Amino acid sequence: MGNVNSAKHHQPSDQNIIFTNNVGEAIDSIVGEIKPSKLFVLVDTNTDVLVLPRLAAISKAVESATKIVIKAGDEHKDLDTLAQVWSQLSENGATRESMLINVGGGVVTDLGGFAAATFKRGMAFINIPTTLLGAVDAAVGGKTGINFNNIKNQIGAFRQADAVVISATFFDTLSQHDLRSGYAEMIKHGLLESPEVFNRLIDSDVADIDTNAMLNLLQESVLVKKRIVDADPTEKGLRRALNLGHTIGHAYETLALERHSPIPHGYAVAYGMLTELVISHMQLGFPSDTLQRYAKYVAESYSSFNFSCEDYPNLLAYMAHDKKNASPERINFTLLEQVGKIKIDCIVGQQDIKTALDITRDLMGI
Amino acid sequence: MGNVNSAKHHQPSDQNIIFTNNVGEAIDSIVGEIKPSKLFVLVDTNTDVLVLPRLAAISKAVESATKIVIKAGDEHKDLDTLAQVWSQLSENGATRESMLINVGGGVVTDLGGFAAATFKRGMAFINIPTTLLGAVDAAVGGKTGINFNNIKNQIGAFRQADAVVISATFFDTLSQHDLRSGYAEMIKHGLLESPEVFNRLIDSDVADIDTNAMLNLLQESVLVKKRIVDADPTEKGLRRALNLGHTIGHAYETLALERHSPIPHGYAVAYGMLTELVISHMQLGFPSDTLQRYAKYVAESYSSFNFSCEDYPNLLAYMAHDKKNASPERINFTLLEQVGKIKIDCIVGQQDIKTALDITRDLMGI
Repeated sequence: MGNVNSAKHHQPSDQNIIFTNNVGEAIDSIVGEIKPSKLFVLVDTNTDVLVLPRLAAISKAVESATKIVIKAGDEHKDLDTLAQVWSQLSENGATRESMLINVGGGVVTDLGGFAAATFKRGMAFINIPTTLLGAVDAAVGGKTGINFNNIKNQIGAFRQADAVVISATFFDTLSQHDLRSGYAEMIKHGLLESPEVFNRLIDSDVADIDTNAMLNLLQESVLVKKRIVDADPTEKGLRRALNLGHTIGHAYETLALERHSPIPHGYAVAYGMLTELVISHMQLGFPSDTLQRYAKYVAESYSSFNFSCEDYPNLLAYMAHDKKNASPERINFTLLEQVGKIKIDCIVGQQDIKTALDITRDLMGI
Repeated sequence: MGNVNSAKHHQPSDQNIIFTNNVGEAIDSIVGEIKPSKLFVLVDTNTDVLVLPRLAAISKAVESATKIVIKAGDEHKDLDTLAQVWSQLSENGATRESMLINVGGGVVTDLGGFAAATFKRGMAFINIPTTLLGAVDAAVGGKTGINFNNIKNQIGAFRQADAVVISATFFDTLSQHDLRSGYAEMIKHGLLESPEVFNRLIDSDVADIDTNAMLNLLQESVLVKKRIVDADPTEKGLRRALNLGHTIGHAYETLALERHSPIPHGYAVAYGMLTELVISHMQLGFPSDTLQRYAKYVAESYSSFNFSCEDYPNLLAYMAHDKKNASPERINFTLLEQVGKIKIDCIVGQQDIKTALDITRDLMGI
């Protein structure tokens, strides 16, 4: 009987994350280890211009890879774009021994990861997130997918990247909004982890952090997510902790979209965490001084989100539509007893949510 | 911290296969155990008419399920059909806690399995194969997918069904060709397993076997595949044993298709195994008397496949295009030292293949 080769693809719970600002070296080393038969690099129309030339100059692997370009923007994270990526892989001779290098934000790593997870039932892929939000969130954790039928991420797979290279090198291509948006997810990880991590983050100003200091903060933050995902890769329980701020945050995001004045995802999460910390205070005694401190930080860094009690019915309806909820009367939250003390699957009634929205408006001064 | 729910979906190596002719009871029991939030049943235009009414009469779960119908035939195992299934799941309120029941042959279980594996990053699905080929091959083992860009199964995922119900109940809907086609894969399992299993199969006439005797043979055969897949779910090594007969079989199948007189997949495998046993005899001393015995069985049960030495260049080209091969000069085979003694990853040169094709034609009397 022949030899059984060692498994090339990592299992869901085994994530290979490399933290470095020497991105080119890291990519070439991973490629040297996995030895793919053929290399492809996926970029969007933004990273094609802003990042790829810089990356090709420092990585032989990227320079030699066959390029696939998709349109930038969440509205192109769809089946048409996915089919284009599959076609280009197919027409350029990709096999199950090939590798795809995803270079971009969450759209590129989510869609590229799903394309690779399903091409010939799975080829290798690595993620090179170029945005702060991508680095702390989308690129790590194995959630891949596309939007379908107007529902975000409706089609996808759980499949870890063979490696993720986390770096602050390309953050100079980002706007202040982009930076603050990603930073909100880092603060979320701080809230889930410990007072030390949380305090370190809200005592820093994301606009002033240099590349090396940012890499250290990134590492601390991403490892919080990694530990949670490793314990529960397919979101049966603990992983829902990562939804902190998102149940109400998504509702704020949708409201802003309906008003035709969209807000960045991370801003919505920052506001959503404020309201959910209010609920945590009401229901689990989350400390008042920490809540006040966070409210002040949000006001200073994210300004405020304007809404009135006339928006409450819509906000509640958006929360009820979240895929985690079985019925509108029983909305599911991740809450905190204190910083680092997580309680998932908390059911909160509509009246308590309305009270928390009132208090949020007070804290924001609106 | 909240409780972490037990994992609902089986890991790749943990297949739940139920052998029974009481299919309705088995389905209702699985559904009672998994308790999906909503049930869907996928059929094609054939099983919708021939099987579903019988199944709905004996299974409350199937009777209550929301029906999704796709067009029958491998030419519809494509992205359009997949998107239709996703849409119908979405529009009828499927969640990640729902379940899809696939009722049909390989097209239904492959495409339905992939739809379920990727809807909301994975909902539950069970397979109810209604063809012999589906029962012994497609429905078991976790290979799901669709054809893409004219390449069979180019897009897909490895994902085990949450359960597979193997039964001979619906084989009365099959033609003699369908039965013999599936039986060839059973014989393949016999060749991989032991002289006892192999002899039992070629001493029986598939057309004469009653439903209960067939269920016993099916169980023996499927468990051979299950053991191999459990040891190597994502085909890194040992699983390639299941390619026995397929490297040359696919070439015969393609040749027949090019001539516009297609042959059933299992027939092509039966002829392909004959040629690959000839190579096994030439290279590994596979016993001559067993080879002769198998040749006689093929002639009696599958008649012969007509080809001449003028077809050799085409046949070799088809083999070289197989996704398992790195170059046309080095074609990869699974061979046997004797029945039950497998050797994977055997590289065979073109001259030896031509000699084996000559001998095959002698043995077939063409």
